[in-house]
Amino acid sequence: MKKYRVGILGATGTVGQRFVQLLQGHPQFEITALAASDRSAGKTYAEACAWKLNGSIPENVREIVVTPIEPPLDCDIVFSSLPSGVARETEEAFARAGFPVISNSSVYRMDEDVPLLIPEINADHLGLIEIQQQKRGFGTGFIVTNPNCAVASFAPPLAALHRRYGVESVVVTTLQAISGAGYPGVSSMDIVDNVLPYIAGEEPKVETEAQKILGTFRDNSIDKADFTVSAQCFRVDVIDGHTASVRVDLKEKATLEDIVAAMKEFPTLDLYSSPARFIEVLEEPTRPQPRLDRDSGNGMTITVGRVFPDNVFDYRFVALSHNTVRGAAGSTILNAELLASKNLI
Amino acid sequence: MKKYRVGILGATGTVGQRFVQLLQGHPQFEITALAASDRSAGKTYAEACAWKLNGSIPENVREIVVTPIEPPLDCDIVFSSLPSGVARETEEAFARAGFPVISNSSVYRMDEDVPLLIPEINADHLGLIEIQQQKRGFGTGFIVTNPNCAVASFAPPLAALHRRYGVESVVVTTLQAISGAGYPGVSSMDIVDNVLPYIAGEEPKVETEAQKILGTFRDNSIDKADFTVSAQCFRVDVIDGHTASVRVDLKEKATLEDIVAAMKEFPTLDLYSSPARFIEVLEEPTRPQPRLDRDSGNGMTITVGRVFPDNVFDYRFVALSHNTVRGAAGSTILNAELLASKNLI
Amino acid sequence: MKKYRVGILGATGTVGQRFVQLLQGHPQFEITALAASDRSAGKTYAEACAWKLNGSIPENVREIVVTPIEPPLDCDIVFSSLPSGVARETEEAFARAGFPVISNSSVYRMDEDVPLLIPEINADHLGLIEIQQQKRGFGTGFIVTNPNCAVASFAPPLAALHRRYGVESVVVTTLQAISGAGYPGVSSMDIVDNVLPYIAGEEPKVETEAQKILGTFRDNSIDKADFTVSAQCFRVDVIDGHTASVRVDLKEKATLEDIVAAMKEFPTLDLYSSPARFIEVLEEPTRPQPRLDRDSGNGMTITVGRVFPDNVFDYRFVALSHNTVRGAAGSTILNAELLASKNLI
Amino acid sequence: MKKYRVGILGATGTVGQRFVQLLQGHPQFEITALAASDRSAGKTYAEACAWKLNGSIPENVREIVVTPIEPPLDCDIVFSSLPSGVARETEEAFARAGFPVISNSSVYRMDEDVPLLIPEINADHLGLIEIQQQKRGFGTGFIVTNPNCAVASFAPPLAALHRRYGVESVVVTTLQAISGAGYPGVSSMDIVDNVLPYIAGEEPKVETEAQKILGTFRDNSIDKADFTVSAQCFRVDVIDGHTASVRVDLKEKATLEDIVAAMKEFPTLDLYSSPARFIEVLEEPTRPQPRLDRDSGNGMTITVGRVFPDNVFDYRFVALSHNTVRGAAGSTILNAELLASKNLI
Repeated sequence: MKKYRVGILGATGTVGQRFVQLLQGHPQFEITALAASDRSAGKTYAEACAWKLNGSIPENVREIVVTPIEPPLDCDIVFSSLPSGVARETEEAFARAGFPVISNSSVYRMDEDVPLLIPEINADHLGLIEIQQQKRGFGTGFIVTNPNCAVASFAPPLAALHRRYGVESVVVTTLQAISGAGYPGVSSMDIVDNVLPYIAGEEPKVETEAQKILGTFRDNSIDKADFTVSAQCFRVDVIDGHTASVRVDLKEKATLEDIVAAMKEFPTLDLYSSPARFIEVLEEPTRPQPRLDRDSGNGMTITVGRVFPDNVFDYRFVALSHNTVRGAAGSTILNAELLASKNLI
Repeated sequence: MKKYRVGILGATGTVGQRFVQLLQGHPQFEITALAASDRSAGKTYAEACAWKLNGSIPENVREIVVTPIEPPLDCDIVFSSLPSGVARETEEAFARAGFPVISNSSVYRMDEDVPLLIPEINADHLGLIEIQQQKRGFGTGFIVTNPNCAVASFAPPLAALHRRYGVESVVVTTLQAISGAGYPGVSSMDIVDNVLPYIAGEEPKVETEAQKILGTFRDNSIDKADFTVSAQCFRVDVIDGHTASVRVDLKEKATLEDIVAAMKEFPTLDLYSSPARFIEVLEEPTRPQPRLDRDSGNGMTITVGRVFPDNVFDYRFVALSHNTVRGAAGSTILNAELLASKNLI
Repeated sequence: MKKYRVGILGATGTVGQRFVQLLQGHPQFEITALAASDRSAGKTYAEACAWKLNGSIPENVREIVVTPIEPPLDCDIVFSSLPSGVARETEEAFARAGFPVISNSSVYRMDEDVPLLIPEINADHLGLIEIQQQKRGFGTGFIVTNPNCAVASFAPPLAALHRRYGVESVVVTTLQAISGAGYPGVSSMDIVDNVLPYIAGEEPKVETEAQKILGTFRDNSIDKADFTVSAQCFRVDVIDGHTASVRVDLKEKATLEDIVAAMKEFPTLDLYSSPARFIEVLEEPTRPQPRLDRDSGNGMTITVGRVFPDNVFDYRFVALSHNTVRGAAGSTILNAELLASKNLI
Repeated sequence: MKKYRVGILGATGTVGQRFVQLLQGHPQFEITALAASDRSAGKTYAEACAWKLNGSIPENVREIVVTPIEPPLDCDIVFSSLPSGVARETEEAFARAGFPVISNSSVYRMDEDVPLLIPEINADHLGLIEIQQQKRGFGTGFIVTNPNCAVASFAPPLAALHRRYGVESVVVTTLQAISGAGYPGVSSMDIVDNVLPYIAGEEPKVETEAQKILGTFRDNSIDKADFTVSAQCFRVDVIDGHTASVRVDLKEKATLEDIVAAMKEFPTLDLYSSPARFIEVLEEPTRPQPRLDRDSGNGMTITVGRVFPDNVFDYRFVALSHNTVRGAAGSTILNAELLASKNLI
């Protein structure tokens, strides 16, 4: 199996640390470059990084010297988790320098020529890469993105319903984990014995990304799905795991059994990070719960529960995903595995 | 001012303790009887009660000997926070023995001849008392109830909209505090670093009570409001304060300013426990928050925020109330104050 | 009663907000100036301050325009909660400009000529003011300080024992609340489902301040108490309320009853913010607890429990105080009340 | 490798679930019997058990029918996590029926003829088994125990110091996780935004067990170590991971480097569940922390940090262990592995 040399942009942040953790022992990807802000550049990763995940910094990256975030880096592809403020310019610079940029950042997600990927759902959107390269004058470089962490939790079951019955409208209320805000992120003074009814910039993302993901690639562009989404986003006192409370109206009639079957039968892929089941429907009335279910499928499975007919909508359900794995670093890596499987990197 | 002698049914529980706390220094009500389960009966309240509120058990009730929960008690009226299992029979026994029963229990709320009161909204439903007394053969006794704690958080702003523009349908997602489950209630193992997507029996209550509260009293019965409600109820790691995420469709057109004005202008009452403002609309984008806002108006004000037009519904907003004050003991006491003001006790 | 006009240095911080809250309705002190960092200066307090306490910013300060932190201010005395970095220079400047500086900052606490006060314990240390004014060439201005928030929780019961039996050595392990770190302070990522075994700079303070507080003012200086203190300081997931686990060896023999009596009988003062009891000894084996006991005496009472003979030391006990009231703003205000009662301001 | 057939007593409880989880894929032990209270007996494990660990109940035990807790069971050895109330009689019955009982229960720990084991420290105490069998008239059955979960966190570093320098006295203050109380265990109403200064029965255990563990097996009995221990035990809002704040006086002089070396060099064993390092000394000033370090060595490593000279004692440090792995189920399994390696089962 070909081994790709990977550079990580934003390597010391919350998602950057997840990249490092998830790439331990990965058969296709080997970390050869770690790039972070000027404050970190020149230090070893062990010195520069305030590690916040379980255990200690993995041995194989401790001594790598952190570089500034600018091309070229000593690698074949880059994984990016740059903050929005710097991502637009920097990711373009890397793409223009010939690097495939597989990004968790939000800035390019809604650009017409940039794939917004969930590999199990819309791998064919990779067709945009060629258009992107032509339009932007990139050579071999390009940018692909994965969705917002909250969208990652409900877009999969929605895709299952949309494919079979058509989605008409969706109302989603999210209960999002603190790790989604990075580090230091949410002050403990704001979240202990509390709930925050506001996450900056989140509701617009949640209201727009799913339509692109579930759109159709035809005539060299994405025809967005035409349903509407309403989102209210809350922060709750949970480390990892975004919960989405969802109501949905369908275009065609479907029974409760149909709905559950559509979710359960949605196929997973055969990539290294693919979970055994893409969507798992739990029968227990008290599930899914973030602490118990976020690590399902090594954090890559979407767990769904409490699927019921609804008084106002056709159906309702609760969906949960690990926001820094399936909702961030894990999805970026899965995108890279998809690209490798298609010989696009 | 006339002073009523009050008995509390379920005096050692979470809501029972709130009754005791809120009645400290009350100008109209004086605690003269505390009734609790057989396990507690015969002990002093200080011995029987594992006090879970701030500070210590108030001096004026420490030495009251707890009695069994059966009539007669040495009092003029009873406040009840009995668990559903025993409330139906016991509350009826008290009413039949001539006691006004002002109850926080859920069992009688939806009975046709029992008022389900929010004094600011539907004080005229007290007209049911006479019908109830006739139908059930009660003498001077009767039962009145207050709503479920989650309903108490969003019914007031809903009432404000319904009265002016008519409510067509409502989707509510609640983030409910642990105190709503009593003591010991929610195990810490279930809620630390977690969210529970299920509260036993809650969603059906939230989907039905508001229509009765906002109903019209005519021809000796309540004509329920005809909107539909969809509820998904979550438990979050918050001590006190239920947050409701609400979308609403209206029957008549209204601007955002209309909506906010309707809420702000909804009148409060002139009772002892009435807050200065019944509904307070907060402008800050990060409010309401349970820890900061639950004590607004001594826990009797509903705080509302994030009122916006919605993609799928006409409007959305977030409403919050203190679940063991406005959502339980405080409402029961307010109901008693209303009854006193109408000379019905 | 004379009314003093008060300026607050560091008015937008966690302790600054507590000053504002605790001074609502105070009979002796009226806020006339609010000073904060350059970022805030020029804005109204409502604009400049991210209010983190219950409810909203009090009406009487909302429209006060925040000034830079430099003398003169439009006030008679200043309350300071400046961060250590700027406190030394700034507080001196105010004292030199003639202002009594009543400070919660740590920088001057251990200076030989600066009183480190707990009014109930060492009011006679105010004798240092005159020495300080001479030595530093201050005119009418001066600096007095109150102890570190963790010290405030165990120094009072220690004083009770020291006065009667002499303290030989003390081992204290603290479980400190997050509000002690200010805002944003402790990241939620660091404290949810966690304990931090380190608080920067804390252990040295806890190991030295009590000896000065319990020292004797003679010959114009403080003769420090000669016991040794060992401190290990932890941060726990609690909003307010520092818990101290204490073992103590005494110089003279004392029975358990003696110990408890010494604590209970330690007199309170007759100042406006003085609690009914300075030290309250709780009998229940499960107390004190931060959430239940921190507000005792409006946050100014020290609650003590679990007083027992110890295997290694003479006795052990648990002490608790509200870290931003008795441990910070409340103590500063009490110091000012003491100064007023002695006509020193 | 010989495969033992294992029965679990108390299989549905918190520790019972950890047994099930930790025995997944174990090369020496295979679960063949699950025993639990009468309420559970007769149901499948999947029906009887409210699984509280990550993920779902493992497939290989879902369909095992739970039996009553009485001998005989279909197994070679039993692992017990019975509550104290029933453990004495039941464990004896199993031993008398010929089963090796490897117990996490507290009742037999301090019995003179029962080994209280930490395999890395006192494997030679297994010599007691023969004495026990003779004295109690057991045939091939016997009882061995592992320590209290809090003791498991600080006894290992203490053993390291005791072996080289002799321990004179120890003061330990524990910050214990909620999982130590089982399920439902600690009410969320008691621990959110709070600390509990009392754990029933805990302090006496912590003050006596270490002396037996570090005792010497000679003349067919254990000569207990003669140091004294003082313990104050707190419950904190942490899921897993007990933190111990320790001060220690030594009999012989030792430098800080000596102390650290003694801990680091304490040998691990070569059993299946043995961690790579028995004691890991972390250099970072902010470690150990329960959330980051409890899973070190799959929950079997003791992490130590903040080793410093102390003002009152010779040294102080902070020790941490996973309370339901190294402090409970993991230790019981390690004991069984030790017994197997010595051909004692």
